[in-house]
Amino acid sequence: MTQIEMARKGVLTDEMRSVAMSEGKDPDEIMSHVAQGLIAIPANRNLKKPQIKGVGKDLSIKVNANIGSSSDQVDLDMELSKLKASVEAGADTVMDLSTGGDIRWIRKRITEATPIPLGTVPIYQAAVQTTKDDRGIIHMDPDDIFDVIEQQAREGVDFVTVHCGITTLALERLRAQGRITDIVSRGGAFLATWMLYNKEENPLYTQFDRLLDIAYEHDVTLSLGDSLRPGCLADATDHAQIEELIVLGQLTKRAWDHDVQVMIEGPGHVPLNQVEMNIQLQKRLCHGAPFYVLGPLVTDIASGHDHIACAIGGAVAGMAGADFLCYVTPAEHLALPGVEDVREGVIASKIAAHAADLARGNKLAWEKDLAMAHARKTLDWDQQIALSLDSRKARAYRDNSKPKSEEEACTMCGPFCAIKIVREYFNDSEASGCA
Amino acid sequence: MTQIEMARKGVLTDEMRSVAMSEGKDPDEIMSHVAQGLIAIPANRNLKKPQIKGVGKDLSIKVNANIGSSSDQVDLDMELSKLKASVEAGADTVMDLSTGGDIRWIRKRITEATPIPLGTVPIYQAAVQTTKDDRGIIHMDPDDIFDVIEQQAREGVDFVTVHCGITTLALERLRAQGRITDIVSRGGAFLATWMLYNKEENPLYTQFDRLLDIAYEHDVTLSLGDSLRPGCLADATDHAQIEELIVLGQLTKRAWDHDVQVMIEGPGHVPLNQVEMNIQLQKRLCHGAPFYVLGPLVTDIASGHDHIACAIGGAVAGMAGADFLCYVTPAEHLALPGVEDVREGVIASKIAAHAADLARGNKLAWEKDLAMAHARKTLDWDQQIALSLDSRKARAYRDNSKPKSEEEACTMCGPFCAIKIVREYFNDSEASGCA
Repeated sequence: MTQIEMARKGVLTDEMRSVAMSEGKDPDEIMSHVAQGLIAIPANRNLKKPQIKGVGKDLSIKVNANIGSSSDQVDLDMELSKLKASVEAGADTVMDLSTGGDIRWIRKRITEATPIPLGTVPIYQAAVQTTKDDRGIIHMDPDDIFDVIEQQAREGVDFVTVHCGITTLALERLRAQGRITDIVSRGGAFLATWMLYNKEENPLYTQFDRLLDIAYEHDVTLSLGDSLRPGCLADATDHAQIEELIVLGQLTKRAWDHDVQVMIEGPGHVPLNQVEMNIQLQKRLCHGAPFYVLGPLVTDIASGHDHIACAIGGAVAGMAGADFLCYVTPAEHLALPGVEDVREGVIASKIAAHAADLARGNKLAWEKDLAMAHARKTLDWDQQIALSLDSRKARAYRDNSKPKSEEEACTMCGPFCAIKIVREYFNDSEASGCA
Repeated sequence: MTQIEMARKGVLTDEMRSVAMSEGKDPDEIMSHVAQGLIAIPANRNLKKPQIKGVGKDLSIKVNANIGSSSDQVDLDMELSKLKASVEAGADTVMDLSTGGDIRWIRKRITEATPIPLGTVPIYQAAVQTTKDDRGIIHMDPDDIFDVIEQQAREGVDFVTVHCGITTLALERLRAQGRITDIVSRGGAFLATWMLYNKEENPLYTQFDRLLDIAYEHDVTLSLGDSLRPGCLADATDHAQIEELIVLGQLTKRAWDHDVQVMIEGPGHVPLNQVEMNIQLQKRLCHGAPFYVLGPLVTDIASGHDHIACAIGGAVAGMAGADFLCYVTPAEHLALPGVEDVREGVIASKIAAHAADLARGNKLAWEKDLAMAHARKTLDWDQQIALSLDSRKARAYRDNSKPKSEEEACTMCGPFCAIKIVREYFNDSEASGCA
């Protein structure tokens, strides 16, 4: 049975208990939300990962890191280093998006190594296999896609991105309205070109029940991909994007009826003033299913610093109700990220998720900031560093810049440290007549 | 005459024309907003800087970079390098916050070198002079503060932070309600301790007219400091902060009545869900005066990456109506920033300002993102790099990661580049039967 099926039957699983424990929640509340589909617990039944994560209603916002090879760079050790860096920096899940080398073998190594839930985009493997056979992606056999999905499900993947919502109607709407960047989702581009060349409907849509059977058997969470997410701000929230979202809402119900867990993927490049609306729209059209946002990036011109554009969009999305943030690294739009890019990307998205958790009143999040505030007030540097989201970087700054005279202060203010002055002259009360 | 006085008399100054030109606005609209105090143009009459910047209503959001020595690090060349890095990264103004070494001499060198408007916090110089004379800050002579302000005004500073709103009542309110971090503004801490020790009201408040006379004479814009800004999220939007803001609103009217330009400084550490409200409150209580926000930082635990916490808060503040963002560097809370920290800080705040400009419908901002969208669609890498807010970093990624086979793509996707696939199979229409 899947998590959602057990929740509906009133069975409190170890996974639900684990989520409740780490989130400081009542297990029955978790069970109830899983039963309604409002929380997903991506946990493949064939291979449980050491850390269980819940995504959705009233939970802390989760962060995903994308790793994986490309045709230009195939290096398993590098990908395992990225996995390690992701986990150390606080990623909640990782997706292996490999498209280069023996990607099944790479995925299996990552699956064995990851302590956190693993996601994939199975159509990448199907596409790469097709092109290796010297055939264009347009000649991909739909059965191959389902075979790959089943193989990955059997081999322990916890959630899969499946682009089920890109239909002939959605492509017509895209064409009718026009767009600058058309399709920027790789999976979406593979399917769109296949559909147009073969003049057939999207097999992941027409054979959705086949997908549900696989997902049900292995309790793989379906992450319904947004093939038509905007690739630039000007394309945001348009007919094509919303057409696909409506279809994803329909498929959500079908998945829930089949006792299959679902998340919805969302934009993309979105102007800051449209972010909240996009979250509200998804929550409404997709019946409250957990929302997994890819960014959103709030400007197109931040190349080299897209992790910051992503943190801005992700924080606002999270405050508005998004449940799961896919990180973006500084290398986005430019290159496959390296290990340090991965670290930077995770930290930026963790800051966004945490800022949104605070805005949503998450108690565990507030405890951390309160502890930091007290450490600042008492000028307790070891505590300040320990409480930092990135202790390693905080410590490096402190170690490389020890103040000469005022050990209690830092090199920015030295003897003019406001905290120190106020503590001496203000908190000890004016009556002491100090100095 | 000051800019505001001339605007009120219908005189269109070169400065107003320059602002109109760079913002793509009607000069008469700029004049009207300057006349009402809704736009400030910090431009000291004694020393015009090459670049003129307007701050306020319907203008693009400006970014300030703080530089300056500390008692632990006095190095003029380093500060001039920070100035250069700030300007290159796109800062609109710079503040010299030096507290170490011969700070008058350092300020004069920076004043000569800066192509953009310069701000200072004169009380730092007064405090440093006092402590150099082996007296505690509590023994500062109010006349010294005014003498320093006048000296700096005469020597070409364009805007000064003056902590006029920290009154005895505000301190009582602070004490009555309690706070974790009390006072984290350095200028505020100097004045608070002076006031409590001497049992006197804040001289910058009681002698506000004296300040207005100096500001009027040299057309120095007053940036009314927020001494009681929160130093942690838990202290945000409390009695003390709002008490001070009310006083700043009163002083704004008095400055405008005196034909003196004013900006208001604002928080600080603020939970994301309180940012918009803080901007609305300032705009209302301070009669629409330009708002200069210090952050806001949306979490306390991002040490080492506070530029990102600041970018999140700054973007949301800007969207809500803030006019001017003071950057924060990755070194914040830990050390005096170095040159690279300054660069990172400016870029992060530029991303925030730009994201907010887009959200506010700024036409010039949208032109940039549209150009980037077209460059992405056509896989024009030189253009993409040229259009990036940080071309240097974008180019470094590209140069260090040239794709082997698919020159048009990047190493993330290689032959599986969505843009490329869609262009080949989709835009050229399915009828071509390509492949």
